Amino acid sequence: MRWPRKNDAASIEARRSVMNVDGGLVTSVDLEPFAGAAESLVGVAVIPVSAVPVAIELGTYELSDDGDVVERGRETETVHVPLAHTEGGLTASMTRGALAAGTVRTYVLHDRITRASCFVCADAAEAIALARWIDGEMPAMREWLESNDDPMLSRRARLRGVKTHVVGPMCHVLWRWTTGDAVGPNMMTRNSYALNMGYVMQRAPAKPQRAILEANMGGDKKPSAEYFQSGHGKTVLAEAFLSDEQIRRVLRTTAEDLEALSWAGTHGSVASGMQSVAFTPASAIAAVFAATGQDLGMVGTSSMAQGTGRRVEGGLQATIRFGGLEVGTVGGGTTLPSARDWLASIDCAGAGKVYRFAQIVAAAALCLEISASAAMATAGSENFFQAHHERGGLR
Amino acid sequence: MRWPRKNDAASIEARRSVMNVDGGLVTSVDLEPFAGAAESLVGVAVIPVSAVPVAIELGTYELSDDGDVVERGRETETVHVPLAHTEGGLTASMTRGALAAGTVRTYVLHDRITRASCFVCADAAEAIALARWIDGEMPAMREWLESNDDPMLSRRARLRGVKTHVVGPMCHVLWRWTTGDAVGPNMMTRNSYALNMGYVMQRAPAKPQRAILEANMGGDKKPSAEYFQSGHGKTVLAEAFLSDEQIRRVLRTTAEDLEALSWAGTHGSVASGMQSVAFTPASAIAAVFAATGQDLGMVGTSSMAQGTGRRVEGGLQATIRFGGLEVGTVGGGTTLPSARDWLASIDCAGAGKVYRFAQIVAAAALCLEISASAAMATAGSENFFQAHHERGGLR
Amino acid sequence: MRWPRKNDAASIEARRSVMNVDGGLVTSVDLEPFAGAAESLVGVAVIPVSAVPVAIELGTYELSDDGDVVERGRETETVHVPLAHTEGGLTASMTRGALAAGTVRTYVLHDRITRASCFVCADAAEAIALARWIDGEMPAMREWLESNDDPMLSRRARLRGVKTHVVGPMCHVLWRWTTGDAVGPNMMTRNSYALNMGYVMQRAPAKPQRAILEANMGGDKKPSAEYFQSGHGKTVLAEAFLSDEQIRRVLRTTAEDLEALSWAGTHGSVASGMQSVAFTPASAIAAVFAATGQDLGMVGTSSMAQGTGRRVEGGLQATIRFGGLEVGTVGGGTTLPSARDWLASIDCAGAGKVYRFAQIVAAAALCLEISASAAMATAGSENFFQAHHERGGLR
Amino acid sequence: MRWPRKNDAASIEARRSVMNVDGGLVTSVDLEPFAGAAESLVGVAVIPVSAVPVAIELGTYELSDDGDVVERGRETETVHVPLAHTEGGLTASMTRGALAAGTVRTYVLHDRITRASCFVCADAAEAIALARWIDGEMPAMREWLESNDDPMLSRRARLRGVKTHVVGPMCHVLWRWTTGDAVGPNMMTRNSYALNMGYVMQRAPAKPQRAILEANMGGDKKPSAEYFQSGHGKTVLAEAFLSDEQIRRVLRTTAEDLEALSWAGTHGSVASGMQSVAFTPASAIAAVFAATGQDLGMVGTSSMAQGTGRRVEGGLQATIRFGGLEVGTVGGGTTLPSARDWLASIDCAGAGKVYRFAQIVAAAALCLEISASAAMATAGSENFFQAHHERGGLR
Repeated sequence: MRWPRKNDAASIEARRSVMNVDGGLVTSVDLEPFAGAAESLVGVAVIPVSAVPVAIELGTYELSDDGDVVERGRETETVHVPLAHTEGGLTASMTRGALAAGTVRTYVLHDRITRASCFVCADAAEAIALARWIDGEMPAMREWLESNDDPMLSRRARLRGVKTHVVGPMCHVLWRWTTGDAVGPNMMTRNSYALNMGYVMQRAPAKPQRAILEANMGGDKKPSAEYFQSGHGKTVLAEAFLSDEQIRRVLRTTAEDLEALSWAGTHGSVASGMQSVAFTPASAIAAVFAATGQDLGMVGTSSMAQGTGRRVEGGLQATIRFGGLEVGTVGGGTTLPSARDWLASIDCAGAGKVYRFAQIVAAAALCLEISASAAMATAGSENFFQAHHERGGLR
Repeated sequence: MRWPRKNDAASIEARRSVMNVDGGLVTSVDLEPFAGAAESLVGVAVIPVSAVPVAIELGTYELSDDGDVVERGRETETVHVPLAHTEGGLTASMTRGALAAGTVRTYVLHDRITRASCFVCADAAEAIALARWIDGEMPAMREWLESNDDPMLSRRARLRGVKTHVVGPMCHVLWRWTTGDAVGPNMMTRNSYALNMGYVMQRAPAKPQRAILEANMGGDKKPSAEYFQSGHGKTVLAEAFLSDEQIRRVLRTTAEDLEALSWAGTHGSVASGMQSVAFTPASAIAAVFAATGQDLGMVGTSSMAQGTGRRVEGGLQATIRFGGLEVGTVGGGTTLPSARDWLASIDCAGAGKVYRFAQIVAAAALCLEISASAAMATAGSENFFQAHHERGGLR
Repeated sequence: MRWPRKNDAASIEARRSVMNVDGGLVTSVDLEPFAGAAESLVGVAVIPVSAVPVAIELGTYELSDDGDVVERGRETETVHVPLAHTEGGLTASMTRGALAAGTVRTYVLHDRITRASCFVCADAAEAIALARWIDGEMPAMREWLESNDDPMLSRRARLRGVKTHVVGPMCHVLWRWTTGDAVGPNMMTRNSYALNMGYVMQRAPAKPQRAILEANMGGDKKPSAEYFQSGHGKTVLAEAFLSDEQIRRVLRTTAEDLEALSWAGTHGSVASGMQSVAFTPASAIAAVFAATGQDLGMVGTSSMAQGTGRRVEGGLQATIRFGGLEVGTVGGGTTLPSARDWLASIDCAGAGKVYRFAQIVAAAALCLEISASAAMATAGSENFFQAHHERGGLR
Repeated sequence: MRWPRKNDAASIEARRSVMNVDGGLVTSVDLEPFAGAAESLVGVAVIPVSAVPVAIELGTYELSDDGDVVERGRETETVHVPLAHTEGGLTASMTRGALAAGTVRTYVLHDRITRASCFVCADAAEAIALARWIDGEMPAMREWLESNDDPMLSRRARLRGVKTHVVGPMCHVLWRWTTGDAVGPNMMTRNSYALNMGYVMQRAPAKPQRAILEANMGGDKKPSAEYFQSGHGKTVLAEAFLSDEQIRRVLRTTAEDLEALSWAGTHGSVASGMQSVAFTPASAIAAVFAATGQDLGMVGTSSMAQGTGRRVEGGLQATIRFGGLEVGTVGGGTTLPSARDWLASIDCAGAGKVYRFAQIVAAAALCLEISASAAMATAGSENFFQAHHERGGLR
């Protein structure tokens, strides 16, 4: 059978027939609203969604004209975070962490997304000259993009800067964009492509031999030191103060045990060559992403995190830093049924919501870190084991 | 409102009411079959599933008594791989890659999953003595586990080896298990906990100060050099030969362009401090995982890959190596409605299927790599852009 | 015996007596010129120095007022590079590489050295506020440093920028300096300390709890992704064109073999989690550093390199990029006897010579890369073995 | 002028004449004893050597027939460690650290050195088959090496194991050796070459297309995650207990400050993508290596370290772990004048001394870590600055 891309009813049916998928939950949903989301549809996947109430002191942020993230105020509210997953114990654990945390405070530090193009030149001299030329062309490139009315260009993706990096005859170029409330890979891809082909290849002092749209200097969907440090998406920090009383009563351990665990865990991560240092941020990221229509291929990169714990007067200060949460509240999967509804349930659907959403993701992840860490601490290990034993029956 | 864990109808309804989730697709599915999968359920997430036919020469593998993966035969078939995602163009791209690849050959090299515990000792001397003692106790520990009838122990998780690593007063211990057709985190967690508490802490020459069940020496759900090299799950390799004719006709580029892209992309990944070297394996991994009930928190670790391309007589040889695909065909989310159906559609539901499934995942990922690489190659960049431009309207 | 720091004759003699070091080469050199170089002297180490003629097309560079490295011209000359080492075969190998390379072209891309301080704050909010404040204070800080006549401040270390990075309650700060023709760790340490204690701790919106002068965000003498990419010292690139004829005649291999070796070696380095990708740059760096009085503790960081090879019309293009060569031609060990003489022998002693020297180091390293790579290539392996077998008798 | 390799008097003189090196310290030493150490000699480099008394509880170790490092006893003595360097303050700082440490305890954990060869095969199937075959041939390969009387083979380099790692059509092979009291690169290179060419290429089930002697899977002279964890040379741990009294009196800080510094420094190293976590081990390694004729190209790899600090009853426990100290007491530069004398001064010259020497290196490095850390701690920063200011005049 030829495998058509089309999503008309007959094509869908033909594919189902070949695959012997003919009934049950996977074919019970009308595919019409999803017809534009992917080619060659055959059905749906259904994942149960649970929720956890998390009290968060959220910042209100705006992007300045210069592309800086500026805080306009802070307000506390309880958000019921939707989590799509099937890991027994995870929701309960995050709930426990949220209880111990009291109120989580969150901050957005930075907002950039990059496309890592590469120009292969005749030799190093030309690559170096190209890099210097590109560095100097920034204002003109911005102007060119903004005054160009080619419909393929995105107006929302705004060029904020560039990093050039020469290796041999290659001039790697990290185009840095802001993309509004969308994650923005497609819109920045279009604009980067236009810059590469319509500007650089036309005007460079010496025409490069090749233009490559993406050549891994950034790490699209692949964790890298570059993304961990410089960010890809929203750089967000979440923090909580755990009082000795809450640690004892809710987490059933002590600040001393948590600190010892953090010490051993950090040294373990160094010994294993881990780029992140945290406990299980990917579990939280994946669950929120799956519920809200984020790109699940970005779970690995968005989960790169650096967690810290230190004893302070009366308790423990716990934080987590995400170098780049690749999240959106418009575009991509966010506009589809179910994703849109879960985003709406936390007031994160549509424009003007992306910084709010990024903070909620980080806060949820911190709550899981707190509870999972506590479960791993010496006194807590028995609790941890019990928790998994009792609730994790599915596995 | 107190936030109960229970999944009876009234509790679910109460939570929905608090969250103002009251209708539409997200509440249209009976939650009863999912009641054991997560606490505090409120609804479902629905993701459209598309499919791609991939011709694969699959190996038939068995685990020997010694824990080696042994090949028993090879057979070619066409598998219609289910993909749950909303990234316009991805399914079409993978379809194109599968067409260009002709038949993908896949191999399972290794099978281990680890729990990275840590014993904190009084000093380095005790940690070193403990490490040596543990190394010597392997046979006795295996015997102890197998003769122990504590119901908390899993019979399917079998201890295959241990790696000790002393850092200061810490003795990090990587317990290495096979877990049958399940991914097995919970079963190995139970057994590791039993070993830590019931064996090591009781019998060690000098009792450690602390036992920590997981201390990051491995990298549970966090990418690490350790996992990238030694593996966590199934180590799988996929390979395809792309003839010059197919490269030209299907991928609309040349072997020379693909090689140039691979060269620049590999150097880009080195420059950015990426642990993987590949193009976009996470997109494929995430899509198959989401359809088949795998743990989405493992997308980042399972996507760690090393891709290669080299020109050979008459075309290009393309491969991808996954250090550790954390996949299962029993347990966890795989038994739930929709996941089970999609697994069944590719004959991967239940026992005896995990090596088959791991190979299908790797083959699908290679098809996407081939097509995505081609789109990035110089000649292909225009195609790539067009593809995203035309189909990626959602983003 | 109390162990005095003093370097008077009697103290030196007393120490020698305790150590039973009483004659031979190690005590044959007058220590007076070295009396200020280290405390508690007891003698000398003597390393034989060999030399290799390398033809280099050197750029002439100046630092602009803004701290950019600007090229003013290019000229070719043959430099006899001094190498202090005892590795049989190394000098001969580099000589062979220089012969094959013909003329090496070198480029200086960037010049910065950093001190990575850290301010530990009460919480993340204060750390974030501090980071933003520091970013905004750059002009005032520069002014403060330049108008301050405290004799402890160095005038030659000029503040060029700052990178702040918040992790939990920590505000890490990379102070970025240029330091003239000296490597400059001490002068930038003094100025960074002054900034930390005299400016930040006095004027910050909320006084940090702690100021730490160096907290590893950079990687002083420790290789890091940060240094590999952003540089620490002089970022230098060297390039050579190897004609098919020279490859065959001098290196006794082929461009095809060299390309195959580069491909396998790059994939080997990725598989082993190497931050550099090159063959043996450290051998060359160490040998030049030891001859010329550079800091041998910086051999590891200065050797971080990315080498490339690609077939081009008529031969192979070989390059190496050093993220940060930590070299100086004034200060530190460079002013001492022997170091000064070897620097003078290549016209690199004193002010105005540091970019020239950095390029010579890179060119020498590339020559060794070329020859060592050739020796590793399939056809060359036999040569490689023979070379080591015949000349490496000492080992 | 042709550039001869020869080291007869006339050739040396001819080279000096070309280089205008004609007098002073660099030509004052008779080169005859160095004539076999390097080709194309022209003179010497002279580095001042200072010394630091360090009290060490040293283990006595032997290599068992199986290649395990076995401890036979422990004894404390004071060793006056020779340091060749010109970094003002370094010797004084290490002396202070040794004073604070009281007695340093050291342990040798492991001993292996590797040559990372690679066989490029026709495809992945052949590479996988080759890897399995090599794994099974270990006993036969050992027998073959030992019964072979080819004079090119080293008897001292004994094959202890192998690690194979397949990436695409490449079968990377880490041959693992012990090499007695020598570092052993040349002897294991000879034997690895013999295995590759004389065994694998002759007998493999399918002959590989290429054998590459070294293909970076290990990281010869280049830091890698592989070496950091699995070691290359001697894996050594050093530990000291710093009493609160010594911390206050000698280091002029507190255990609390040291712990805070260690916490911030570890997080800084994670943020910067450092593979090591320590303060300045390379300074100590380089200084001992330069005095004792070790390979200075191995300073970077041998300095890869993981340092820890934790508060314990009455003080602070400080440790450092070196994954692989590449040290020797026979062969290479160790037999030359000056190197041999400095080795003899600490009873480390010749056979049976390499584990003793490795421990001394680690102990010296820990003393510098302690003092440098203290200088960086908040209270200590002022001391640190003063120390560098007063003594670092050379820089």
